[in-house]
Amino acid sequence: MIRVGIVGGTGYTGSELLRILGSHAQVSVVAITSRTEAGTPVAELFVHLRGQVDLLFSEPDLSLLSECDLVFFATPNGTAMQLAPELLARGTRVIDLAADFRLKDSALWERWYGLPHACPDLLEAAVYGLPELNRDAIRSARLVANPGCYPTAVLLGFLPLLEAGLVDPGWLVADAKSGVSGAGRTADVGMLMAEVGESFKAYAVSGHRHLPEISQHLKPFTKGEPRLTFVPHLVPMIRGIEATLYARLGKSGVDLQARFEERYAAEPFVDVLPAGSHAETRSVRGSNYCRLAVAEPLGSGTVVVQSVIDNLVKGAAGQAVQNMNLMFGWDESTALTGAALLP
Amino acid sequence: MIRVGIVGGTGYTGSELLRILGSHAQVSVVAITSRTEAGTPVAELFVHLRGQVDLLFSEPDLSLLSECDLVFFATPNGTAMQLAPELLARGTRVIDLAADFRLKDSALWERWYGLPHACPDLLEAAVYGLPELNRDAIRSARLVANPGCYPTAVLLGFLPLLEAGLVDPGWLVADAKSGVSGAGRTADVGMLMAEVGESFKAYAVSGHRHLPEISQHLKPFTKGEPRLTFVPHLVPMIRGIEATLYARLGKSGVDLQARFEERYAAEPFVDVLPAGSHAETRSVRGSNYCRLAVAEPLGSGTVVVQSVIDNLVKGAAGQAVQNMNLMFGWDESTALTGAALLP
Amino acid sequence: MIRVGIVGGTGYTGSELLRILGSHAQVSVVAITSRTEAGTPVAELFVHLRGQVDLLFSEPDLSLLSECDLVFFATPNGTAMQLAPELLARGTRVIDLAADFRLKDSALWERWYGLPHACPDLLEAAVYGLPELNRDAIRSARLVANPGCYPTAVLLGFLPLLEAGLVDPGWLVADAKSGVSGAGRTADVGMLMAEVGESFKAYAVSGHRHLPEISQHLKPFTKGEPRLTFVPHLVPMIRGIEATLYARLGKSGVDLQARFEERYAAEPFVDVLPAGSHAETRSVRGSNYCRLAVAEPLGSGTVVVQSVIDNLVKGAAGQAVQNMNLMFGWDESTALTGAALLP
Amino acid sequence: MIRVGIVGGTGYTGSELLRILGSHAQVSVVAITSRTEAGTPVAELFVHLRGQVDLLFSEPDLSLLSECDLVFFATPNGTAMQLAPELLARGTRVIDLAADFRLKDSALWERWYGLPHACPDLLEAAVYGLPELNRDAIRSARLVANPGCYPTAVLLGFLPLLEAGLVDPGWLVADAKSGVSGAGRTADVGMLMAEVGESFKAYAVSGHRHLPEISQHLKPFTKGEPRLTFVPHLVPMIRGIEATLYARLGKSGVDLQARFEERYAAEPFVDVLPAGSHAETRSVRGSNYCRLAVAEPLGSGTVVVQSVIDNLVKGAAGQAVQNMNLMFGWDESTALTGAALLP
Repeated sequence: MIRVGIVGGTGYTGSELLRILGSHAQVSVVAITSRTEAGTPVAELFVHLRGQVDLLFSEPDLSLLSECDLVFFATPNGTAMQLAPELLARGTRVIDLAADFRLKDSALWERWYGLPHACPDLLEAAVYGLPELNRDAIRSARLVANPGCYPTAVLLGFLPLLEAGLVDPGWLVADAKSGVSGAGRTADVGMLMAEVGESFKAYAVSGHRHLPEISQHLKPFTKGEPRLTFVPHLVPMIRGIEATLYARLGKSGVDLQARFEERYAAEPFVDVLPAGSHAETRSVRGSNYCRLAVAEPLGSGTVVVQSVIDNLVKGAAGQAVQNMNLMFGWDESTALTGAALLP
Repeated sequence: MIRVGIVGGTGYTGSELLRILGSHAQVSVVAITSRTEAGTPVAELFVHLRGQVDLLFSEPDLSLLSECDLVFFATPNGTAMQLAPELLARGTRVIDLAADFRLKDSALWERWYGLPHACPDLLEAAVYGLPELNRDAIRSARLVANPGCYPTAVLLGFLPLLEAGLVDPGWLVADAKSGVSGAGRTADVGMLMAEVGESFKAYAVSGHRHLPEISQHLKPFTKGEPRLTFVPHLVPMIRGIEATLYARLGKSGVDLQARFEERYAAEPFVDVLPAGSHAETRSVRGSNYCRLAVAEPLGSGTVVVQSVIDNLVKGAAGQAVQNMNLMFGWDESTALTGAALLP
Repeated sequence: MIRVGIVGGTGYTGSELLRILGSHAQVSVVAITSRTEAGTPVAELFVHLRGQVDLLFSEPDLSLLSECDLVFFATPNGTAMQLAPELLARGTRVIDLAADFRLKDSALWERWYGLPHACPDLLEAAVYGLPELNRDAIRSARLVANPGCYPTAVLLGFLPLLEAGLVDPGWLVADAKSGVSGAGRTADVGMLMAEVGESFKAYAVSGHRHLPEISQHLKPFTKGEPRLTFVPHLVPMIRGIEATLYARLGKSGVDLQARFEERYAAEPFVDVLPAGSHAETRSVRGSNYCRLAVAEPLGSGTVVVQSVIDNLVKGAAGQAVQNMNLMFGWDESTALTGAALLP
Repeated sequence: MIRVGIVGGTGYTGSELLRILGSHAQVSVVAITSRTEAGTPVAELFVHLRGQVDLLFSEPDLSLLSECDLVFFATPNGTAMQLAPELLARGTRVIDLAADFRLKDSALWERWYGLPHACPDLLEAAVYGLPELNRDAIRSARLVANPGCYPTAVLLGFLPLLEAGLVDPGWLVADAKSGVSGAGRTADVGMLMAEVGESFKAYAVSGHRHLPEISQHLKPFTKGEPRLTFVPHLVPMIRGIEATLYARLGKSGVDLQARFEERYAAEPFVDVLPAGSHAETRSVRGSNYCRLAVAEPLGSGTVVVQSVIDNLVKGAAGQAVQNMNLMFGWDESTALTGAALLP
């Protein structure tokens, strides 16, 4: 049994961590912090956790947190980098669900996030927590950068193609769609149900922070910089990401289905659907699975990949728990095997 | 480990049974039947169960089913009554999630359901599977009539008042609202998303089959026939029932909050919210809980109870599993303790 | 052609006024004010009005507004009462879509709205703008209090019963449900789509400001204070209110259908549906109609009325235009005859 | 005043035609046919048209229809081609909202639609009813093939690029998303709200019938066959299509914004949004507008176009009325200038 802390517990990733960790026998959550809600019972804010979670929110206190074996940061960007160095120095491992440690290049990070980085020296050691890419490094990591939700869906869809050199890295398109919980639990006129319900739109067309994150991890498999066009969209639903990926095949006659099945044969949370399938976000709702479908429509030379995840689970809290399981040497699937909730 | 069969597995209650039983260590589902889908893998129809359920749908075969210790009927009304007598005769216990055994009076049943009853002699022995009302009888039952979704929400809200004689049984109102999954997984123009999305309406105002079911169980606590007006409504969401109940208090100065808390103090799945609360359906989504709030607005002499459940869980499959746990002497909460999925 | 101003144009009632007035040949909107958006083109904030509205938002300026023949206040409660006295003094007529002039009793107003009233002397002269109740008074009014959305739906449903003395005013229940646009266009965590989507709940059970407004207008038809229990609920949809009303019939054998049809025979915007109908909110979406259905289920002595409106049209901007048409002697239906948008 | 008939009036395009034509002063709808609903008042099926439409559905009768000046077919594919030849022979003009006359090549049509074509000789004379492409031909057409919903959105987005030769026609991607009303008003388990609500997915990835329709109209602007990958998706909302288009720019330094604004400067129903905009489907809900936004993200050499329409209006009934206006020499915008309904 390890002691776990959660910094920033009033958002959706925080509450999902609590839900998932509630069925994890080796974990005891000893602190969940929130400046604004300190003293409030967690189950008062998150009524669905009544009878499940007895904790109160507390002030983020370094001495308390450093008594933990592991601290999750479920905070806005720019918070984890303030506290992580000291926690790591005191021997507490850290998983950051925000973006502070996702980019290796601090200048690039500062350009996209608009802040000076508080501990650029930690970027190199931070391990990007996509188990399907970095499993071994995660096992021994002290600091894990949990991937963004879009990068998780997009990378899992592109990796089988790029690793095998099957497509032209100079013309990649990722048309991604997310439910509204991706915007977090923050007052914002633009995310009112009366504003986003019954409507669909692209956003951040001019450039989204997840683009450099994706590109960084595509680069090793391409010669030079990949040229990816990434356009996120907002779907009038709460949970789920679907990414439809387009790439130009370098040669014909490739058995794409076999390639994908082989790539993910041993993966507990990546499910390659049968040929001809369409991947629905509801098929992963509330679960840690990524489901993929691959096709080359009409023999056109263009490969189309569909990738679906639950943005709050495989795209955030579930993947963080998967990383924790790896870091502590437990079965990677512990507390994560529940089926999706459908309908 | 018992052997369990599910008759009628292509609907939402069938797939929910599979989802819930998937984490129940004492149960092995050995058969799930569907005439139309016989031979199809369950996980082909219900993609969210890929990797969780390996069964194929099979023809409903009495010899196979009678080898089960327990058979759940997740069928349309009128099916269970055809097979239950023979199964019971062979020693297989039965839980019917449809309405075949919910009413004691076969004439009343035939009036509301428009069919002759195939085994009226079984009605008396059938136990109405609302554990909060009938726990002891359920423990020894061979045949359980799993309650309707609306009756579950409405009865749990009215019982503390009627058992204590606090309200006038001559003027009860239940204004109930259900998500669309309550209508089942059946082709019907009226349940298309383009028809029911972004709209709200009452239905069955002239009389709904759940009315005699509710009344039957209110009657023991009233003198004579209770006079209940029950109006169901359709909400543009998938899961959840909310019932707002209105009754006239017989005397003033009653501590309603204490009454409700006391009534359900020992209940594992009924949660009385603090005074002043509003019960949201999302707080029970995917879980087996019923959450209740009670108030007497403005000291008006009218008590208002809010009752929320997930219609597919506490209103169907979850309650059926709760009943099974009781019938087989296991911890009543086995496989049912998961938190709701929110947001 | 009259000159019209709109104070508070960045909310949904303001934009609906613009949409409706856009097809009104006798009206020229000369000013639409917003402190926060002054200088911004209206069509930049409300993209659906591109090509329809050329105005910029402007500072609320009394000299400009007093040049108008009519000013609509589409502001939060407490704003209109600051400006209305001076506008009226200068000869400009006023329709307040907020609550400032809805209650005759200033002490009651102050209790429910938590503010001292700025011009209690105007309350008596203000005309409650429900044309079906007050048509003649509206024609000659200088100051109209546009009804609340819930009161519009509830009063139109109860009036035929109470005016004819058919029901017991001592036990009235209004179970009302509203889409989320009723909460306005204001940043609020509680109205995020991730919070209110796919969920249903009651709110303000302990007392809602529309209760005294409804009661005030029921009172003339009852002996003494009516005893109304009013519980509003939030529906995961954008537009629409449905109110299900319950009352105890004083005698049997009343032809309720005929009573309702007769009461509203001459009304252009109240449509009594055929017996046996269910009223859907989508049937009035975007239109100024109220549709009603009435029934006495199972001859139980309880009358059930269903009333649906679009909260932003008949419940706000459309009714305000209807009132304007009456005040200026035009055809009451001008600019309001469009059919609902369905599906 | 012309006499108009509508064949196939029980679907969404039929009811939208009625809604729009209801405000068209030069049109009298004299017949609306439905085999299944013959004899039923239209307003009984479409409650939102109560008080607006007095017609009954009637049997499709050639003698009645041929007395019309114009007949709209709002039928499934394969119906219009049975009746159109005779109607045209009798002098009645025809607008087909289905696909019967959209492809010039009858062999291609038969391949995609799986039927022999009943009147291939009419295909050449049929005019593809996209006014922005074919305005002059439409004016004198006797038979108009009203475009598909996806082709309308996609073509209006690609045309400015292809007409000016700005992009590589060998690598076009159209990632399109539609609300559920696009699937029509037909009983289908797959379109139940419980199946498609709160979920997002691609469909018809292996090939959709709108692909050859789009390609046919791109071809004149490309050298040889354009290579378009078209993937439609289903959005959990009722109305609206968004298409995000991707193409590779042939040269740098093109002022895309100016190109789009110039191309559509004179178009009454195509609105090019300011640079940096995101096009929302709600901004055109219920209206005949197409709104476009164009960008070259990060100077990447890839142009991204967003195109939004209401699939039932500009994507069906509205465009049909626009075509009718052209065919009869009226103002093209008659009955079509209403603003979108937002929120």
